[in-house]
Amino acid sequence: MTDVKHMKWWGWGLEGVGFHFEDKPEFAPFVKKAVGLDVSVPPVPPLSFDQLTVPPVRLSPSFEAELVAIVGEEAASTADEVRVVHTYGKSIRDLLRIRRNEIARVPDIVVYPGDEWEVQQIVDAAVAEGAVIIPFGGGSNIAGSLEPLVGETRSIVSLDLGRLNRVLAIDEYSGLARIQAGAQGPDIEEQLNAKGWTMGHFPDSFTHSTLGGWVATRSSGMQSDKYGDIADITRGLRMVRPGEIVELRPLPSTSTGPSVREMIIGSEGRLGVITEVTVQVHRQPEVREVQAYFFPTWKAGLAAMHEIAESDASPSITRVSDARESGFSLATRKASKGVSGAAQSVLMSVLKRRGWNLEEMCLSFIGYEGTASHVSYEKKLVGAIVKKHGGIGVGKGPGALYDQKKFDTPYLRDFLLDRGAAADVSETAAPWSKLQEVYDATRAAADAAYEALGVHGWIMCHLSHSYHSGACLYFTFAFVHGDDPIAQYEVVKQSIQQAFQDAGGTLSHHHGVGVEHAPWMEQDISVGGVKLMQGLFDSADPAGLFNPGKVLGPAQATPESVAALRAAAPRADVAEVPAP
Amino acid sequence: MTDVKHMKWWGWGLEGVGFHFEDKPEFAPFVKKAVGLDVSVPPVPPLSFDQLTVPPVRLSPSFEAELVAIVGEEAASTADEVRVVHTYGKSIRDLLRIRRNEIARVPDIVVYPGDEWEVQQIVDAAVAEGAVIIPFGGGSNIAGSLEPLVGETRSIVSLDLGRLNRVLAIDEYSGLARIQAGAQGPDIEEQLNAKGWTMGHFPDSFTHSTLGGWVATRSSGMQSDKYGDIADITRGLRMVRPGEIVELRPLPSTSTGPSVREMIIGSEGRLGVITEVTVQVHRQPEVREVQAYFFPTWKAGLAAMHEIAESDASPSITRVSDARESGFSLATRKASKGVSGAAQSVLMSVLKRRGWNLEEMCLSFIGYEGTASHVSYEKKLVGAIVKKHGGIGVGKGPGALYDQKKFDTPYLRDFLLDRGAAADVSETAAPWSKLQEVYDATRAAADAAYEALGVHGWIMCHLSHSYHSGACLYFTFAFVHGDDPIAQYEVVKQSIQQAFQDAGGTLSHHHGVGVEHAPWMEQDISVGGVKLMQGLFDSADPAGLFNPGKVLGPAQATPESVAALRAAAPRADVAEVPAP
Repeated sequence: MTDVKHMKWWGWGLEGVGFHFEDKPEFAPFVKKAVGLDVSVPPVPPLSFDQLTVPPVRLSPSFEAELVAIVGEEAASTADEVRVVHTYGKSIRDLLRIRRNEIARVPDIVVYPGDEWEVQQIVDAAVAEGAVIIPFGGGSNIAGSLEPLVGETRSIVSLDLGRLNRVLAIDEYSGLARIQAGAQGPDIEEQLNAKGWTMGHFPDSFTHSTLGGWVATRSSGMQSDKYGDIADITRGLRMVRPGEIVELRPLPSTSTGPSVREMIIGSEGRLGVITEVTVQVHRQPEVREVQAYFFPTWKAGLAAMHEIAESDASPSITRVSDARESGFSLATRKASKGVSGAAQSVLMSVLKRRGWNLEEMCLSFIGYEGTASHVSYEKKLVGAIVKKHGGIGVGKGPGALYDQKKFDTPYLRDFLLDRGAAADVSETAAPWSKLQEVYDATRAAADAAYEALGVHGWIMCHLSHSYHSGACLYFTFAFVHGDDPIAQYEVVKQSIQQAFQDAGGTLSHHHGVGVEHAPWMEQDISVGGVKLMQGLFDSADPAGLFNPGKVLGPAQATPESVAALRAAAPRADVAEVPAP
Repeated sequence: MTDVKHMKWWGWGLEGVGFHFEDKPEFAPFVKKAVGLDVSVPPVPPLSFDQLTVPPVRLSPSFEAELVAIVGEEAASTADEVRVVHTYGKSIRDLLRIRRNEIARVPDIVVYPGDEWEVQQIVDAAVAEGAVIIPFGGGSNIAGSLEPLVGETRSIVSLDLGRLNRVLAIDEYSGLARIQAGAQGPDIEEQLNAKGWTMGHFPDSFTHSTLGGWVATRSSGMQSDKYGDIADITRGLRMVRPGEIVELRPLPSTSTGPSVREMIIGSEGRLGVITEVTVQVHRQPEVREVQAYFFPTWKAGLAAMHEIAESDASPSITRVSDARESGFSLATRKASKGVSGAAQSVLMSVLKRRGWNLEEMCLSFIGYEGTASHVSYEKKLVGAIVKKHGGIGVGKGPGALYDQKKFDTPYLRDFLLDRGAAADVSETAAPWSKLQEVYDATRAAADAAYEALGVHGWIMCHLSHSYHSGACLYFTFAFVHGDDPIAQYEVVKQSIQQAFQDAGGTLSHHHGVGVEHAPWMEQDISVGGVKLMQGLFDSADPAGLFNPGKVLGPAQATPESVAALRAAAPRADVAEVPAP
């Protein structure tokens, strides 16, 4: 078989890697307080693979032979474990379904093309056969962008791009790199770093997601303030369609009608298979620093981020956690790292003397990149704003820690699942004037959902990805689930999503739509907007062979379902902010 | 009638305003040298309006009555002069056709809706009638985005948005303003400035173009380095479609599938009528300065702009003219302004002593905005780069002059037309590594075309609109035409456009596509890209009522026509730059 790496079939990351709390003394008490869970109870691990009921392969022998002839024996598989790994992404619904042996439909064959010409042949063969094509990158999606539709009667081909993982060329004078779509984050950065370059795109899924997946789902990385969202970073691309390749040459900007580039970005496989992307790359900066700050309250932290965005400063990261997430971050430290021990005690006494309520305190990270003198200039600009809003700098220690463990959080979810708690994330973006309302409404919606379910739940938040006109709010929520965790999860998740819409936020800032967010598309981009997009999909793929049901799924929220969500989770009582 | 302002039916700008050379002593000798034209010969003014043959109105009485009932008697017109003003934009082809009484097809009625609901009713009435709708903003387009198709047998409604010219609301905390699509540049800036804000969007057409037009054609303004292209500035919008409004709420960023916002931007009326746009606005900066610099050569200027884009500096304008355009700029100065008289003589002797060839010297403008200390910091960063590339700062004088007269250039075209010379502009964008090749190939293509035509021609260029990965090159060309100026113009224009494509540039950076650039769409975004876009247009407008023939026109370049253009204007002999 090919040497393409895959995550665990039942959870995040590589086999043998997981979350451990034994070296984090404050973690167990924190979780006990937050969701009432005793993490020292013996875990119940997921079922073993042979306990799964894997649907049989539905594939005509001639089509299978044709695909094998294209990619070779080594690069095609109908093995159960391979097909199961390619069935879901890594949302909590995905993990719960796998753990409960709910896999109604899986791909019938997984193929690993070795070059673009093989992709073209696979696509053309599938179209001739009337088979469904689901492109697969790292499998990290958490919006349901990968799952086959239940009840799909046609053959399903999972087209895994994992072998297309090379940086093909760097145009050093233009700061552009041609990279194959199946390259994962570490593949890309290693190949670029070796020549002094970086792409600067670091989503939380970085270690296990691919360039093609980032483009297909409109990803954004934690340094987007400097490097841009993937839509900004993507300058050119190649996408295989039936019988032809759409080729968009790399251009800094162009005025050629509606943007085909921006039609393909976010298309989640519905228009074709992205094989190659030309991205902006930057010389690795002389200095890169993540500084930590404390703010006395969430409001103060939010106001400071707003003022930084409005100022002449241009940091690479702006991030502030609410008091709950700040407490969580401090509780997941190892005993000896970060703002720790004696130093922390001293700092806390100082803040108390200043009149801070330490329960309200918020942790912030701001990133700086450039020449040493530029970093120093930026820090001065930001420092003055932090001070104006009552904040205080606490140095590089916590920032360095954040930098090291930033990709570890997804492992925590499997740890909690083993112990009967469901945790997931929902994120949105909104104009600055609406962020407080989105925050209040979302917390109220989650709490109302927890109350309705009779569960001990938790929700926390950080602001990240600042723009001129607004920012992203990223929520993490968890609760100890009952016998039907998926139904309970859906109540919480849907309440949160509806709160986003009602308060002026979008259904997702950077996780894509999939099937999970599709019900809010009409509310988000209007009925007329959905019709334009549907027209594009239908004209490009009249037979519905390309990852059908994603982005514009069969399920749109109805007036009744929206009303029910609103009734269940009434909006927080917040001051009316004039619409822009 | 309504008080909506229009430009001259035969040329640029307002009646009574024009270009004068009497106070510019170096202008006449410059033009004599450049294109062999004696500007002191008596001008031949354009024909008078009553010499035009205006096609009759093709409109059913019932449809006319319906439209009049929607907007009122005052806001509908079938008068010849009104219809002619709404026929063309202001390209050289447009001006030549008007001057030669070539107006085969004009709109049959012009309506001026007073609000969005009237737009909706007009659209619905036209769709019911099977009439063509051409949205009209300021009428400044130079790519043929407005003209009715010759041979159009259906009724044509010109939908003039001029009465929708208000800033509706400013969300000061988010830096967002809701503005009606028919607002012209000065309308917008006056209303915003009164409250301390600016949109920062200043295309050359600023004084006569509208927000809706900017969005519909993917405009870019001269301060785009700081404020972004219109695609970046546009955060939300409303567009009227048959029976419904597409509403995109203002969001800083979103992950909702293919971008409907980016489908509408650049759509040139083919998807519907944009009525309202929510744009990013910025507080007016404390300091705004345009500094002038001289570089010893074009290559040095280009290299400096590249290094600025790669550096930590972030100026609001980066612009450098080639030696020819630098000479032109100096020749259009009034005798007493700018780098003038004695001071200039002293400077020139200094530069000569430094070994500069003054014939090769290039003029550059760099803009700075922000607090006083930030402007000073930025100037220091840029100053060091300029010096490294052998450039020299010459202060604020020429920059202030540039700022004052930046919107006057289009008047020069009418002045030259009165004297038998045709002048126009073509602009492109390309990665940094390809700019020199685009420049060389374009100059060679124009010169080859002039030679083939046996005319004395001229072409000059500036770089503007810098991005991380490339920049815009903006060419101005002129020649004394013969008896068939349109045919001659087409030879030159098409040679230039083909050179852009062949050297790695795009068909336009910010002028849109219209019918003029449509033949290069397949070369620019590939055949597959054109098909995706065509599918969008066809699904959104199956009857072809919305500004038909624009962006994807009837005429695509054929392999034969491309080969002919390449043969006529062989590529410059430049070093091969490795593709990214």
